[in-house]
Amino acid sequence: MKVYGDIYSGNCFKVRLVLDQLGIAYEWLAIDIMQSQTRTPEFLKKNPNGRVPLLELDDGRFLAESDAIIFYLASAKLLKANSLSLLPEDEFLRAQVLQWMFFEQYSHEPNVAVARYIKRYLGNPASEQARLNSKMPPGYKALDVMEQHLNSRTFFVNETYSLADVALYAYTHVAHEGGFEMQRYPHIQRWLARVAQLPNYRGMDE
Amino acid sequence: MKVYGDIYSGNCFKVRLVLDQLGIAYEWLAIDIMQSQTRTPEFLKKNPNGRVPLLELDDGRFLAESDAIIFYLASAKLLKANSLSLLPEDEFLRAQVLQWMFFEQYSHEPNVAVARYIKRYLGNPASEQARLNSKMPPGYKALDVMEQHLNSRTFFVNETYSLADVALYAYTHVAHEGGFEMQRYPHIQRWLARVAQLPNYRGMDE
Repeated sequence: MKVYGDIYSGNCFKVRLVLDQLGIAYEWLAIDIMQSQTRTPEFLKKNPNGRVPLLELDDGRFLAESDAIIFYLASAKLLKANSLSLLPEDEFLRAQVLQWMFFEQYSHEPNVAVARYIKRYLGNPASEQARLNSKMPPGYKALDVMEQHLNSRTFFVNETYSLADVALYAYTHVAHEGGFEMQRYPHIQRWLARVAQLPNYRGMDE
Repeated sequence: MKVYGDIYSGNCFKVRLVLDQLGIAYEWLAIDIMQSQTRTPEFLKKNPNGRVPLLELDDGRFLAESDAIIFYLASAKLLKANSLSLLPEDEFLRAQVLQWMFFEQYSHEPNVAVARYIKRYLGNPASEQARLNSKMPPGYKALDVMEQHLNSRTFFVNETYSLADVALYAYTHVAHEGGFEMQRYPHIQRWLARVAQLPNYRGMDE
């Protein structure tokens, strides 16, 4: 299979991490968001919503949305025998994983990732300060919810590493690049370290 | 089971529609968002993220996030024999359903639902005009993506009504309340009519 992505995008990072951890072979096709390579007519034929990551199966079918892609990868019968299981079998636990994935896309990513985008990718221009400022309180609120949850847990669902951790790790581990003071969050910091020590982990810069 | 919700919230409407269509018995506990009933200490113990809908199982476990809740309801072994199936069995089709549900929460709801919230719930005050204006272009972009997809399809995935349709229907059928000119979208309008004619459909005001 092929993945169209930009590895410095946390959403794309999720897909690479899951592919690596599940031991699935893939071809990575680098897409430069800043060069508007997701808005070309050719790319829009692949994903009419104009975003990466985008998965292309060997039969030519496409799948968009990072969390839908990693759900597919972890649920499909693609797993090698000795790979991690990233989705619980139990329907309620699986729904709890999805709960955190939807939390991530609704309450976390639009704030934490966008603050990082403004600071890191756009160079933190004066014209973006109002938007940046509007992202900080809801970003901290999402991080507060995570910190409270991790106060008594090692991973987000059922004390087991899952797609919920993958989805939330992606932009949390680079939240400082968006200006978030992560020293406020000792439980999140220990969880981040725990994820980074898992087998077949590879950082954004590796 | 119990549902904490506000029926005029599209996210809560999804849960009621799925429960009705699957023939699952439930108790509806009305929560008034405008009275901040999602932010009381008592409610925050149930959902630390302070949002509805919230599902409470008979054993006291909670599940948040509308799309995670309806995924659970449709996947769990709760189905009556003659009820609709709202989730395909095939893993790729199921991931396509999730793709549209994540699209809804990321690209559609934060624009279409928030514009409606400002106009309908907040009374469209002058102080909210900048925020309202910022929601219209990305809201139209999401509707454009839907219109294009429905140009050659009756439902979003596999020509079969599914949770993808439920998730997108919720705020699209009241998008005009946010000021979106829905006469631009003939394919969406036909799809809305198709959903409203399904068995056990009940509108927000019914």
